[in-house]
Amino acid sequence: MSDLSPSLADPLKEANEPSSPVARFGPEAPLLMDCGVVLDHWQIAYQTYGTLNADKSNAVLVCHALTGDQYVASRNPITGKGGWWTAMIGPGKPIDTDRFFVICANVVGGCTGTTGPASTNPATGKPWGLSFPVVTIRDMVRAQAALIDSLGIETLFCVAGGSMGGMQVLQWAASYPGRVFSALPLATGAKHSAQNIAFHEVGRQAVMADPDWRQGRYLEEGTRPSKGLSVARMGAHITYLSEQALHRKFGRKLQDREAPTFSFDADFQVESYLRHQGLSFVERFDANSYLYVTRAMDYFDLAADHDGVLARAFAGTKTRFCVASFTSDWLFPTADSRAIVHALNAAGASVSFVELESDKGHDAFLLEEPNLFATTRGFIGAAARARGL
Amino acid sequence: MSDLSPSLADPLKEANEPSSPVARFGPEAPLLMDCGVVLDHWQIAYQTYGTLNADKSNAVLVCHALTGDQYVASRNPITGKGGWWTAMIGPGKPIDTDRFFVICANVVGGCTGTTGPASTNPATGKPWGLSFPVVTIRDMVRAQAALIDSLGIETLFCVAGGSMGGMQVLQWAASYPGRVFSALPLATGAKHSAQNIAFHEVGRQAVMADPDWRQGRYLEEGTRPSKGLSVARMGAHITYLSEQALHRKFGRKLQDREAPTFSFDADFQVESYLRHQGLSFVERFDANSYLYVTRAMDYFDLAADHDGVLARAFAGTKTRFCVASFTSDWLFPTADSRAIVHALNAAGASVSFVELESDKGHDAFLLEEPNLFATTRGFIGAAARARGL
Repeated sequence: MSDLSPSLADPLKEANEPSSPVARFGPEAPLLMDCGVVLDHWQIAYQTYGTLNADKSNAVLVCHALTGDQYVASRNPITGKGGWWTAMIGPGKPIDTDRFFVICANVVGGCTGTTGPASTNPATGKPWGLSFPVVTIRDMVRAQAALIDSLGIETLFCVAGGSMGGMQVLQWAASYPGRVFSALPLATGAKHSAQNIAFHEVGRQAVMADPDWRQGRYLEEGTRPSKGLSVARMGAHITYLSEQALHRKFGRKLQDREAPTFSFDADFQVESYLRHQGLSFVERFDANSYLYVTRAMDYFDLAADHDGVLARAFAGTKTRFCVASFTSDWLFPTADSRAIVHALNAAGASVSFVELESDKGHDAFLLEEPNLFATTRGFIGAAARARGL
Repeated sequence: MSDLSPSLADPLKEANEPSSPVARFGPEAPLLMDCGVVLDHWQIAYQTYGTLNADKSNAVLVCHALTGDQYVASRNPITGKGGWWTAMIGPGKPIDTDRFFVICANVVGGCTGTTGPASTNPATGKPWGLSFPVVTIRDMVRAQAALIDSLGIETLFCVAGGSMGGMQVLQWAASYPGRVFSALPLATGAKHSAQNIAFHEVGRQAVMADPDWRQGRYLEEGTRPSKGLSVARMGAHITYLSEQALHRKFGRKLQDREAPTFSFDADFQVESYLRHQGLSFVERFDANSYLYVTRAMDYFDLAADHDGVLARAFAGTKTRFCVASFTSDWLFPTADSRAIVHALNAAGASVSFVELESDKGHDAFLLEEPNLFATTRGFIGAAARARGL
C-alpha cells in the first residue's frame, strides 16, 4: 500500500515564533473579525523585498493563495525550497524588486507565523485549534491593512495575487479603495462556486475523518492527521491542473515498470506523482489551517456584501485593474473573471482583461507563462508611469 | 462536525448468499483472469426482465457502472430503492421488456452477489479481502459470457451500458464480435484518462487511510472503513455532475439557515448534499470492492491490447454501434466518444454517434434525458427490424 507517514515541520514553533519578521498587535489594535470575535493579541508574519522609496509610493502587496506563505521570492526556511513566485518577482522580473518594495504576509488562519489555529491562545496557553474564530477573506485583508499601517504606508502602488490571493486583491479594492492604486487579480473569482465549495468540503472531511485529527486537538495530544490531510491535498491538487496537462505530463505511463502489477501499488506515474504531492504537503502545512483557509474561500462572495450587486463593491473606485484568466483553468474559469470585469465596467473602473492561452490549468498563474509575464510587465509599467514612479 | 457512522448492509451475506439468482461455476468452468489467477469456484449474481423468445434472439445485456448492481429495473433489496435505470428499461420503455429479455449481472469484484473481495475464499474459509485477484474489465466480460452461455444464449441482440458499463460494452464487441448484434456504449471511453485515474487514486487512498480498513481485513476484524469510503464517494460524486448542474441545484444557497454559522458545519446545501451522498453510499457498498472496481477502470485501455491501435479491437466487426456522449460530461468528454467512433469508422463498422446536450454531467446517462431515450429507442428499434424481431 502507501506510506503516508513523513517527517513533519513543527507547526507550534512556526505559528508562534516564525522564521520571518512579525508585526505584533495588542488591545490597542484589535483585529475585528467578521464572525464577531475580537482578537486583541495577534500577529502577522511577512517578508519584504526591495526598498521602500522616500514618499512610500512604490509598495506592492502580494497576496498568497490557499497554501502559500510569505516567502514569495526567497527561500522558505520550512521547506528549504525557493519562493513560490520567483518567476514573477525579483530583480528585473515583471514585478521588479529593483523598482518596487514588495510585501508578502502570511494570512490570518495560516500556519507560517500569522495568528491561526496552531497559535497559542493567550487565554488558555494552549493551541487555539478549532476554538480559533472562523476567518474570512475580509479578515485577512483587515490584518494586512494593519501591517501596512504599521509600515507607515498609506497607499499601495499595487495589490497582486492569484486564486485566493486574487480574492484578497478584490477585497482590498472594495474595502480600501483609496489605498490601492492598481490591482492585479489573477485566476480568481468574486465568489466561490458550488463545485469549488464541494471540493473543499471533501478535503475538510478527509482531514476530519482521520482519527489523529482528534477533533482538532492533535497538537495538544501529540498526533498529526497526516493521512487525512494528504488525501485532501491529493484531491485538491487535481483541481489545480487540467486534463490536458495531466495527459501531457503522465498520460497512462507506468512508474518504473513494464506492465501493470495487478495490485494497488502506484502503477501509474500520475498516482505516484499525486502521492508525492500529498506527502510533501503534510510536511509543511497545518491541518487545522487547511480547514480555516478553505472555509475562508468558501465564504467569499463579494457581491453578497453589497446587496448582491458586485458593481457596488467597486463604486467610485479610482483603482486601475488588470484581470487575467487562463483557458484551461476549470477551478476559476474565464467566466468568473468576466463577471469581475463586467462589474468593474459597470462601476466605471479602469480595467483591462486578458484570457491567457495555457493548458496548465489553475496553477498556470504560478508557472512559467510568458504571456502572463508580458501582461504583468505591461500593466505594472503603465501604472508606474501613471503614478510617476 | 459530521456524523459518518450510519447503519450498514452486511457485505458478507450479500457476497455469498445474494438476494438474486446466481450462476455458480466450479473447476469445470474456471474464470481465467488477466492477472493470471484462475478462479475455480466463482459465481455471478444477476436479474432478468421480460421473456426470452424461442430462438433466443431477443436478449439484451445491460452492464452496470462503477457502483451499480444487477437491480437495473427492479427494487434493490439492499437499499429498498428502485432499479438504477428504470427510466430506460421496462414495459414500453426505450429498452422495452415487453419485447426484449433484459439481463443485468453484478460485475466480478462487485459486492452484490458476484464473486469479489467480500466473498469467502474457499481455500481459507475467510473473506478474500485484498488477496482477491485484481480484476479487469475483460475479466468482468468473461464472467458475463459464462453466464450468457449458461443461459443457452449464443448471440446477444444488444449490449448496453454507460461509463464503466460502456467499457464493458466495448470489451464485449472486441472479445466476442460474433455474439453482439448491436452495442450501445454511453458516456464512456476506450481507456481511462490520467485525470480519471488520479481521481480514483484519491478515493482509494481515502479508503486505505482509514484505520478501520485494517489493511483490507476489516470484515474479519469486525470494523468498517466507513469514513474513508464516504470521503471517497464524496469526491467521486462531484466528478459525476457538472459545474452548471451544481450551480443550478445548489449555487451558494445555505442549508436551513439565514446566515453562515462561521463554523465547519454544512452551512451550504452542496455540503449537506455531498455528506448525504457519502453516508448513503457506505450503507450499500463494500470498501474493498470500491478499490477493485475503480482499479479495473484504471487498467482499461482497449487499444493497448491491440498494439496500440483501437481500430484493430474492432477489425471485421459486424456489430451495429450507437455511441453517445453528453456535452457537460467532463469525466468522459465527447472527445473520448469521438475516439471510439473514429476507430469504428476505421474498422468499417456500422456506427452512429450523437453528442447529447445536457448540463447534468456524466450522470446524465442515468437520468431523465428525453434525447437519450429517443436515441436509444430509435437505435434499438432499427436494430430489432434488422434482426427480424
